[in-house]
Amino acid sequence: MRILGIDPGLRVTGFGVVDADGPRLRYVASGVIRIGSGALPPRLKTVHDGLAEVIREYRPQVAAVEIIFVNVNPQSTLLLGQARGAAITTAVVHELPVSEYTAMQVKQAVAGYGRAAKSQVQAMVQRLLALPGLPSTDAADALACAICHAHAATMTAAATAQLAPAPRGKTGRGLRMRAGRLR
Amino acid sequence: MRILGIDPGLRVTGFGVVDADGPRLRYVASGVIRIGSGALPPRLKTVHDGLAEVIREYRPQVAAVEIIFVNVNPQSTLLLGQARGAAITTAVVHELPVSEYTAMQVKQAVAGYGRAAKSQVQAMVQRLLALPGLPSTDAADALACAICHAHAATMTAAATAQLAPAPRGKTGRGLRMRAGRLR
Repeated sequence: MRILGIDPGLRVTGFGVVDADGPRLRYVASGVIRIGSGALPPRLKTVHDGLAEVIREYRPQVAAVEIIFVNVNPQSTLLLGQARGAAITTAVVHELPVSEYTAMQVKQAVAGYGRAAKSQVQAMVQRLLALPGLPSTDAADALACAICHAHAATMTAAATAQLAPAPRGKTGRGLRMRAGRLR
Repeated sequence: MRILGIDPGLRVTGFGVVDADGPRLRYVASGVIRIGSGALPPRLKTVHDGLAEVIREYRPQVAAVEIIFVNVNPQSTLLLGQARGAAITTAVVHELPVSEYTAMQVKQAVAGYGRAAKSQVQAMVQRLLALPGLPSTDAADALACAICHAHAATMTAAATAQLAPAPRGKTGRGLRMRAGRLR
């Protein structure tokens, strides 16, 4: 399964593409789309065109985006909401199912701790994907989101397997609960 | 010039298509896209697919959308922002330039009064477009936005004409100022 993680923003939109084969992860690509300033509509077009190019080039099968919460600055929240709307629309228009995760779920999946610092997330993304260098924060957030989806998908698959009659008598309860937290 | 006015929303997105020939307006179509409930990504897809269908069917040349402001409820603002991002993205992806107007500009253009009530806007839209009945509020808002763009475009054209050497000695100052307010 090839996953596109997106970290939407109106100045910079980060993306990260990861292949997940069960618990195994393989880095494919990551980067940022620089949006520039000016009127909103052309900026949203830049978000769309950049992500559409990534989708055409790397052909991911699913997309994962972080859930945003209302910010201290409502105007920033509104701008970010519009960027996020553009990013999700681009994914769904390209027939990608989109999963959403809270920042806490993403950090938990990557760093094992829901309140991990940005630098910890960067370091863990580098480690989990065996990258030669530290990814930029925007790319790291997008990759972390893709990794989170890979974990959630693995958990769901495991939980589904456990829910079927278990020939070896396992209950799978712990796994189901973890899957519930991660989804 | 065929104008698509959009009133984005995550429950209902209104649209209105108007032909403008200088100051003359002709109603083409209007309606609402009903979004339903559930997860955000499929709802944004519904916004996109509905507007894409309207664009394919009526082939507008420009789009006009109301500028939204931060709401009393920040969560609603965030949701609306995402719907607006999806709507604008759909327009720009279909190569439509998008103009944005404040609610006050739209009301001013349609009802001659920036603080006009919704019912006044509906009534004026019905009158300006010679509609047989009152349009729904969502469709009326979208049509009002299209009418506002038609006015702004006419004003800009008039102001540009006035800015050129005026054979009849007019200064065109008033018009330029009004165009400035409306754009």
